[in-house]
Amino acid sequence: MDKILRIDVGAQGGPKATVEPVGDYAGMGGRGMTTMVVYKEVPADCHPLGPENKLVISPGLMSGSAASSSGRISVGCKSPLTGTIKESNAGGTAAQALGRLGYAAVILEGERQGDDMYKIVIDDKDVKIEKANDLKMLPNYDLIEKLKPVHGEKVSVISIGTAGEMRFSNSSIAVTDPEFRPTRHCGRGGVGAVMGSKGIKCIVVDASNTKMRQPVRPDEFKEANRKFVEGLKQHAVTGQGLPTYGTNVLTNVLNEAGGYPTYNFREGRYKHAQNLSGELQAETMKNRPGGVATHGCHRGCAIQCSGTWTDKDGNYMTKQPEYETVWSHGGNCGIDDLDVVAKLDFLDDNYGLDTIEMGVTIGVAMQAGVIEFGDAEGAVNLVHEVGKGTPLGRILGAGAATTARCYGLEHAPVVKGQAMPAYDPRAVKGIGVTYATTTQGADHTAGYAVATNILKVGGDVDPLKSEGQAELSRNLQVATAALDATGYCLFIAFAILDQPETFGAMVDSINHMYGLEMTGDDVVALGQKILKMEREFNKKAGFGPEHDRLPRYFSREPLAPHNVVFDVSAEELDSVYNF
Amino acid sequence: MDKILRIDVGAQGGPKATVEPVGDYAGMGGRGMTTMVVYKEVPADCHPLGPENKLVISPGLMSGSAASSSGRISVGCKSPLTGTIKESNAGGTAAQALGRLGYAAVILEGERQGDDMYKIVIDDKDVKIEKANDLKMLPNYDLIEKLKPVHGEKVSVISIGTAGEMRFSNSSIAVTDPEFRPTRHCGRGGVGAVMGSKGIKCIVVDASNTKMRQPVRPDEFKEANRKFVEGLKQHAVTGQGLPTYGTNVLTNVLNEAGGYPTYNFREGRYKHAQNLSGELQAETMKNRPGGVATHGCHRGCAIQCSGTWTDKDGNYMTKQPEYETVWSHGGNCGIDDLDVVAKLDFLDDNYGLDTIEMGVTIGVAMQAGVIEFGDAEGAVNLVHEVGKGTPLGRILGAGAATTARCYGLEHAPVVKGQAMPAYDPRAVKGIGVTYATTTQGADHTAGYAVATNILKVGGDVDPLKSEGQAELSRNLQVATAALDATGYCLFIAFAILDQPETFGAMVDSINHMYGLEMTGDDVVALGQKILKMEREFNKKAGFGPEHDRLPRYFSREPLAPHNVVFDVSAEELDSVYNF
Repeated sequence: MDKILRIDVGAQGGPKATVEPVGDYAGMGGRGMTTMVVYKEVPADCHPLGPENKLVISPGLMSGSAASSSGRISVGCKSPLTGTIKESNAGGTAAQALGRLGYAAVILEGERQGDDMYKIVIDDKDVKIEKANDLKMLPNYDLIEKLKPVHGEKVSVISIGTAGEMRFSNSSIAVTDPEFRPTRHCGRGGVGAVMGSKGIKCIVVDASNTKMRQPVRPDEFKEANRKFVEGLKQHAVTGQGLPTYGTNVLTNVLNEAGGYPTYNFREGRYKHAQNLSGELQAETMKNRPGGVATHGCHRGCAIQCSGTWTDKDGNYMTKQPEYETVWSHGGNCGIDDLDVVAKLDFLDDNYGLDTIEMGVTIGVAMQAGVIEFGDAEGAVNLVHEVGKGTPLGRILGAGAATTARCYGLEHAPVVKGQAMPAYDPRAVKGIGVTYATTTQGADHTAGYAVATNILKVGGDVDPLKSEGQAELSRNLQVATAALDATGYCLFIAFAILDQPETFGAMVDSINHMYGLEMTGDDVVALGQKILKMEREFNKKAGFGPEHDRLPRYFSREPLAPHNVVFDVSAEELDSVYNF
Repeated sequence: MDKILRIDVGAQGGPKATVEPVGDYAGMGGRGMTTMVVYKEVPADCHPLGPENKLVISPGLMSGSAASSSGRISVGCKSPLTGTIKESNAGGTAAQALGRLGYAAVILEGERQGDDMYKIVIDDKDVKIEKANDLKMLPNYDLIEKLKPVHGEKVSVISIGTAGEMRFSNSSIAVTDPEFRPTRHCGRGGVGAVMGSKGIKCIVVDASNTKMRQPVRPDEFKEANRKFVEGLKQHAVTGQGLPTYGTNVLTNVLNEAGGYPTYNFREGRYKHAQNLSGELQAETMKNRPGGVATHGCHRGCAIQCSGTWTDKDGNYMTKQPEYETVWSHGGNCGIDDLDVVAKLDFLDDNYGLDTIEMGVTIGVAMQAGVIEFGDAEGAVNLVHEVGKGTPLGRILGAGAATTARCYGLEHAPVVKGQAMPAYDPRAVKGIGVTYATTTQGADHTAGYAVATNILKVGGDVDPLKSEGQAELSRNLQVATAALDATGYCLFIAFAILDQPETFGAMVDSINHMYGLEMTGDDVVALGQKILKMEREFNKKAGFGPEHDRLPRYFSREPLAPHNVVFDVSAEELDSVYNF
């Protein structure tokens, strides 16, 4: 991964590719790479959809190697949804393919000329850019079907659906999985709109003539990775919970904890949660023809948290919906039918929408009276409105904050314009600190304090008390920023937080891959460096401590059943970045 | 004006009125009052439509006296459009009525209970609050018709239309004129939505049993006011231009100067501007039955910049549309028909919309392809969509910035979310500095540098150069803040900037009214005090220097015919508040 591919979409005669050495960006990957490029090359006060923004796509440092669970791909830019810097990552097969082809980053830049849409094809020999107006306004699944006869099913595709083409603030970038389905999404922050604003419909990555990336110290690497996999298998979450039930194992856990946001964050427990549980989900998939309960989103993952959801007759409906998706479209909207959730998940993937933002937006629309809570058919129709770009769809496609604005509603559960995920910050205060203070807008993955607050991984901090949450969130945010640079999936955190030897095996794997002698402190330093660049960018973009807050109603309106408000003080929130 | 009326809309059993002495707010009026109350009583980080915001209505210090042209009423709150502090003022008869009744302020506060709408009736004996669901969703003209049989035509009415009830970010508060028409609007910043969020449809002010407010030094006051009026009559702008042609005298002037924003701020000169000119407007009104070219928006105004616009058969269409309205719906949208502009002005007034925000929003929608530039019928339909609250109407009713977001467009000519008025900041750089730095979001009235850049009033600063603009804007912003506290119309500024004796007569009038010995320096100090409170509020609300900027495309894309970009540096912009 020693080269960078730049696509100048404003070049005369159509987008032009240039390959250059990785240069100053050497040693960066994933979020480290996307953040550094955006920090150095994008004016912080530019318009996210204007010519000065850039879209940076980067495989993690370990992607394309034999390191287990290292297939994350990061996408970075200035976010159309939040106005902050943004990194959004996904699984799927593209990170491994780009890594094997040696690309540390693909950067889309410049000012789009005209209305044409383009397809980029990258293989071991060449980079081709073709006008592809026949692909215009195709949803992701239809796009993939159209690409199959041309490129086969062994390539990886990075693409936008109709939402990205219409430059919606909620629009994802899809990445294909091993079955060549567009199921893995860089969902958050409207990154698809930036790809759309550059006029790029899809990037086809063909690594079929390449080999796995080779470590500098092959034998030591193999041994470290073996220990690492052993650690993943051994931990209850990564070895049993996630493979058996997927991330949706959390529904019952959060509901029991009273931190399951229900009816647009108005209650903390949903009376029909059992109808949405991971246990039911896994059982259903085992019993239905074609259903798969345990599956990896890319080759070489030891966790296998994914799956395939089929209807009663065995027809493919979507990949196994994740916890946040089941929650956002389920309990948050008063909908308790897993088949409806699966349908909504498919539509989101197809149109290219973030499932969290879309579900929260529907919840806001329900509170505004657009449709009733629990109206499953209505919810499906709303997503179709977005996909088609009707006026109502344009409101919803702009996200939860804009929907609340258009309907004159205070109750938008957002930070910096981005919808909160599936954990109520009043009852899981550590994640509330992360929502408030992360550089990304409300985001659970930026510092997953739920682990320690609820799952008791990496310690035990009472979720209902304000004490200790700032420190917890700080440590997790730093560790996550570093992890997001490696290409390792965030889910390995459960094992490395609880098992020092697994953390050691991960660091060793990186060291033997690159011939380094990094310590745990170096990992912390990398995380801090990334966060500092992100904070500095955000500061120049106009974000200060006043923006590191939850909406006031979370401090005013108590959440049942615990009747708690969010009461972490401003001083504590501001202490998160004391490093 | 020694008392304050507070309406607690959250009181048990319905909104409750309390009258209290003016207390700590003594000596404040207009913008001084609204700003001080919001600064002291409203948490800067609250949601504008939530229970913690307040709507403050305050007549100017001179309103209700015999002082000429002193009938401005200020409305203040945290703005739903910008998120900043907001003061929006209008003419009409309500300021005089409230002043005569002795109210320095009316404050709507607390948390609305349920969906009922209320009417407040204030007279010399009492304050009555009545449930008024029969008035729900009435446009302003229809509302007034319904109030006539109950209250007669001598009262003043402060009201919201359908936009305010739907809590649109673009929604005005209407004030009736001497003909009991809802033609004068506190337009900017979505103040109507805050009134709507409090469940108050209208405030009827009946001052029929009261007398004009008496000066402390009656004879001296009379003499000072005489000199003041003499000064207004004597100045070319206030004595001739405004009375004869209204504010729309500016169309030809700005077009000639190349600073007339055309086709959503893409050109600086409109080829059909002569069809929209104040000269043609005045001539048409003189020739049509029922048309009035010279008219005062309240009794006792020596300027008389208003008028009445009738159709060819003499039917009332609307009041004489002002320059910014004629521009926003006219040249900015490629529409060159004054009757169409009049129709749009009427619809804006009727639904309760700011004409600047609405016209700029239509321009953005035209660039986004919703309708074509020049499509008059389409523009009329768009305003109806807003008034009815269709999904498209909700996008447009949320203003230009939200419309651009929903259509994925960079080209939103806004600062802090508020639409720029009728002067392109590239060709009139002084007003660009005001747009960028005022506490209010883009607003020409906050520091009308056009006076000095283009009209050569109060000096001469080249509009096309960046030199001197920051100082000019600073001085004007300070003076304006003070003036907005007095109730005097901003238009007197033309005379007091050019004629020291008229400025002196104004200060004398205030001194003799209140028995004070203020100097010009005290006026400056008052202006600075108001601005400092506003800046401090905005800082706590999350606005820093990074927000005191124009959108980057104004510095990137040159404006014809002068081919200029906005090039006032960040340092110069930041120097505006060096006091």
